[in-house]
This record gives sequence, C-alpha cells and structure tokens, in this order.
Amino acid sequence: MIKIAIDCLGGDKSPNANIEGTVNALKNHDDLFAVLFGDEKVIREKLSGFDYPAERVSIIHAPDEVNGNDKPINAVRLKKDSSMIRAIKELRENEEISALVSSGASGVLVGAAIARIGRIEGVRRPAFCPILPTMDGSIVGICDSGANIDCTPEQLRQYAVMASAYISCVYGIDSPKVALLNVGVEEEKGDELRKEAYKLLKEEKSINFVGNMESRDLLSGKYNLVVCDAFAGNVLIKSTEGACLEMLKKLKKDIMSSWINKLGALLMRKMFKQEKEFMNYQNYGGSVLLGLEKTIVKGHGSSGARAFEKCIDQAYTMIDKNLNEKIASALN
Amino acid sequence: MIKIAIDCLGGDKSPNANIEGTVNALKNHDDLFAVLFGDEKVIREKLSGFDYPAERVSIIHAPDEVNGNDKPINAVRLKKDSSMIRAIKELRENEEISALVSSGASGVLVGAAIARIGRIEGVRRPAFCPILPTMDGSIVGICDSGANIDCTPEQLRQYAVMASAYISCVYGIDSPKVALLNVGVEEEKGDELRKEAYKLLKEEKSINFVGNMESRDLLSGKYNLVVCDAFAGNVLIKSTEGACLEMLKKLKKDIMSSWINKLGALLMRKMFKQEKEFMNYQNYGGSVLLGLEKTIVKGHGSSGARAFEKCIDQAYTMIDKNLNEKIASALN
Repeated sequence: MIKIAIDCLGGDKSPNANIEGTVNALKNHDDLFAVLFGDEKVIREKLSGFDYPAERVSIIHAPDEVNGNDKPINAVRLKKDSSMIRAIKELRENEEISALVSSGASGVLVGAAIARIGRIEGVRRPAFCPILPTMDGSIVGICDSGANIDCTPEQLRQYAVMASAYISCVYGIDSPKVALLNVGVEEEKGDELRKEAYKLLKEEKSINFVGNMESRDLLSGKYNLVVCDAFAGNVLIKSTEGACLEMLKKLKKDIMSSWINKLGALLMRKMFKQEKEFMNYQNYGGSVLLGLEKTIVKGHGSSGARAFEKCIDQAYTMIDKNLNEKIASALN
Repeated sequence: MIKIAIDCLGGDKSPNANIEGTVNALKNHDDLFAVLFGDEKVIREKLSGFDYPAERVSIIHAPDEVNGNDKPINAVRLKKDSSMIRAIKELRENEEISALVSSGASGVLVGAAIARIGRIEGVRRPAFCPILPTMDGSIVGICDSGANIDCTPEQLRQYAVMASAYISCVYGIDSPKVALLNVGVEEEKGDELRKEAYKLLKEEKSINFVGNMESRDLLSGKYNLVVCDAFAGNVLIKSTEGACLEMLKKLKKDIMSSWINKLGALLMRKMFKQEKEFMNYQNYGGSVLLGLEKTIVKGHGSSGARAFEKCIDQAYTMIDKNLNEKIASALN
C-alpha cells in the first residue's frame, strides 16, 4: 500500500477540489491510501457525496489554514493545527506515509518541509522543480526554482542529477537533455558560479548535459531540464508565464475591439481553446521538492480537482518507481 | 552642432540599413553631424544614391568588422581597424563627438566602451538598459541587462537613478515607476543584495520607487523601470522575448494546420499584423549604455534603416537634453 498525506486546505478551490481529486486518484490506483488533513466534519460531509473506497481513506483533524503571509518558521511554531503543518509532522513521524500533496502556500510548504523532513543521504540542499510545456509538445523542468537563492556549483550539479532522475521517472523521457541557465551558450560565459558548475556538469556521468542555455530557448523543446539558482529560476519561470498570459490577454482585448476580429476568432475558437489548454499548467502536474526522504508535490494554488488528482498521481509514480533510491544511488 | 559617430558595420543589414538610417536622421535634425565608420569606398557609393546634406557628413575609413565571437579585450588590441573599435577611439579622443550608434556585437561594444571611455563623475559601473513595450502601450526599461553580473546594492541604486533620468528624458515619462526585480513583492523578500538595495532605493529621493516586482508583471504596464543585476536582467528580457516569439510561432503553425483557421486568420490579418508590429523591438529604439561621459546606443543586430534611424534620434535626444549632466547632478 502506498500511503499519501493530502492537505485539503490552502488552495483557491480547497477543500472541494482536493477531496474530489483524491477520490479520483483512489480510483486510479488500487494500492493507494489517502490520509486527509483538514476539518474532519467538512471532509466527511464532502466525501459522503462520492462513491469512494472508505477502507483506503483516513482523516486527521487539522482545521487551521496556513497562508502566503505566514513565514515557514512561524507556521511550524504557531500553526500546529493547520492542515499543512500537521501533515508535515505526520510525514516526519509516520514511516508508513511516503508523500505529501498540497496546493497551499509554496513558501511555507518548502520551508517547513526542508526544516522538518530528513534529507536523502548526500543531498546538500533540497531543490524545487516546476515543469512547463514546450512548443514541440514535450516538457521542461526548472530546478531550482524556489528553495535556495544562494547556491554553490556542487548544489547545481546535485539539482541536475536529482531533477534528471525525476523527469525520466515521471515523464518517461530517457536521458533528459540538461542545460545550465546562462547569459550565452558559449562554455566560458557567466560568473564564477556558472563557470564552475559548467565543469562539474560536463564531468557528471549520470546526466545528459548539453551545455549552456539562454533563457529565450526555454520553451523551444531543445532542453528537458534547466539548472539554475532559485533567483534566476524564479525570474525565468514567472517571466515566461507572465509574457504568455499578457499576450493572450492582449489578443483577447484586440479580438473584442472589432466585429471582423470577433468573426475570425469565432472560426478559430477551437484553435484558441487548444492554445488555452496548452498553456494550462494544470495539465502538467505539480512542482516537486527534490532531495528529501519523503516526496513532496506542490499543486498550483488554483488547482481544480483534475489538477490535484494529477499531483497525487505524480507523487504515486515517484514512490512506485523508487525515485528517491535512484537519486541516492546517482548521488553517492 | 551635435556630432554622432555611426558604426556602419556589424549588423545583419549593414552597411545599407545604417547608411539609409543615417541619411534619414540627418533630415530629422538640422544640427546633426554624422561621422561614418566603415569601408570608405562602399559608404561613398551607397551615399551617392541618396539626396543628403554632404556638409554634415564625414567618413573615417575602418573596413574591418568585429563579431560576436570576439572578446572585447582582444577586439580593442587586435581589431583597431574595425569600424566599432576605431569609432570608440575617435569618441574617446575627439571632444566634438558626443555619441556612438552601433548595431554590432553587444558584448564587444559594451566591454570596449567601458574600457576606453571615461565615466560620469560618481558612477561606480556603467549599466546597459534595453526597453520593451508594455501591454498598455507604454514602455519598461531593464537596467542592468548586460554590463555587470556581480553587483552591489549601491550599484543597483545608481542604475535606478541613471535609467530613471534616461526614461524620463527620452520617453517623456514624468517620474517613471521604478521597481526592484525580486522573487516576491513583499519588502523582506530576496537575498542580501535585494534586501539592502530595497533600503537604498526607498531612501533615494530622485526616483519614484514603487517596491519589489515579480518578473511575471514585466509587461503589465505597472512599471517603467526594473532594476536588477545583469544575470537576472538577461534572463528576464530574453525569456520574455522568447516566450512571446515562441507563442506567435505556435499560433502561426496552428493556423496553417486547418483551412478554417486559415480563413479566420485571413479575417484577422490586420490584427495579427498589428500584434507583430507591437512585438517589433525596432519600434522602441536601441539599448543604451548609461554612466559613460559619451552616449552609446546599441541597435538590435537585425536593425533595418528605420530602427537604425530611431537609434540615432535617441542618441540625439540624449545629448540635446543633457542627460549626462542630469545623471551627474542626481548622483552627486
């Protein structure tokens, strides 16, 4: 049995989306057991509306909610009855539980999990790895994108090893193409951190390192994994998402400004719907925190039931395929 | 008379676009004098095809060309007869020349200009400031975006002061909204560099500091200037451009994939043309190197005649409005 802790609070569509997503994930996997954290009464009430395998569900009452303004250290100390912090405690203490899926506040989840859960042997610092779709229909991971702003060349090497194993395991990509985010593609580009990291990555045998990458090529499909410090990773992913969203917004506004555009868009509505679907992060699973002994998957704050279900599937796959053991053996 | 050095080589459409752009800029300003650098014979031949004020043009023969693979230090030493390096020498030695406009290799131009041209009093490090259009029809500058990967809080403060004066002077925006690029909008976000810079920017009276910015809001129109180190600036601008271009490419491909989409796009062709024009960096002028005693404007490598003309207009405006004096008085 694979036991996964589910944080039912924290997301924009919590607890409904989280509970519905859990019920669907339970249907996908016969050996999945879900431990739900949140307001027990509310959870029981919502669950009663579904046909679900009650023998594979338990509930731990933790009705408080962390939010984006909480600092991780304060949340751990002061919000012990919040669904997220209580779930992390259970994850730490209960050997049977292998993973936590949450759509709550990113910063608190990452900070509290790093503080409370042990690391895989040899891991210097855990790293956060979100996934974006590429224009050729594949995916690209960005690691680190949220855990460590200051980092060393050795950490960048470890991110490459961990995230490479993750992408191969969850997305079925054999030897993912790994690039180092830099200001130019030539080997000698960048600051000392990048120059040193380039050398380490080039020598690392467990990955398929293809060289430096410029940020403009993120969505091109040339790479499956970009390795960077968390500041650059944050800038990279948010500016890419932001530019795509702003462009779609502008297109929409311009379409609405004339009847001939509206008519054209009407003809192309199927295509525009596909574009929107393509841009929908909910189709690509959650972001994972790599390097801890337990699996942590963070769904987007606005995750609906389907997105949340995908995050649980993702956590299930990571455990089922022994990702952490693979990471440990690649690192040591 | 305002004398500007023109690098006729280095761009994809050089020397034709550069020469035609210069002729047009000479028509825009009666007191503009252009000193053209390149192959004298070729320049004379091209010029003879235009009706232009010959008394306001001189040519310095420098037929070599620098390229993207040259390192600045090598170019300065070994490519003395290249149009760019010869122009920088003239800019340094000839007091009458106030500016240089080039569409040649960015790295060489920035590196060689910093090495050879004196700084404005008080400037720690010059900084590179490209401009992007925002979705509400305004502009946003990104400074630094190419000169200094390692920087201090004081440098970030100086970038804000210099680029704020520049945007106000050239784009006519009164008290541009200045933001610090960070991983979140809250004051306490980021590493030590960002935390210290935030304090300095908040205290700086010559600018309109509005706080931290997340990269996803770059094109939103909420900000006119983003202050950052050159690594983050490079990631920010290239990922934004890359995402927009990749999206347009995908739209185009999807349009071509079905006749009904083609028909819809035919109806919307005027709108798509406008979107493309909106995305065309050539409409927003070149990038400037701020902090040197002489004005340096870098046009995009693929600048056509109109884009190159705009870069000369931009350099003219910076000199005409005494930008460097304004920067000196704001800094000291």
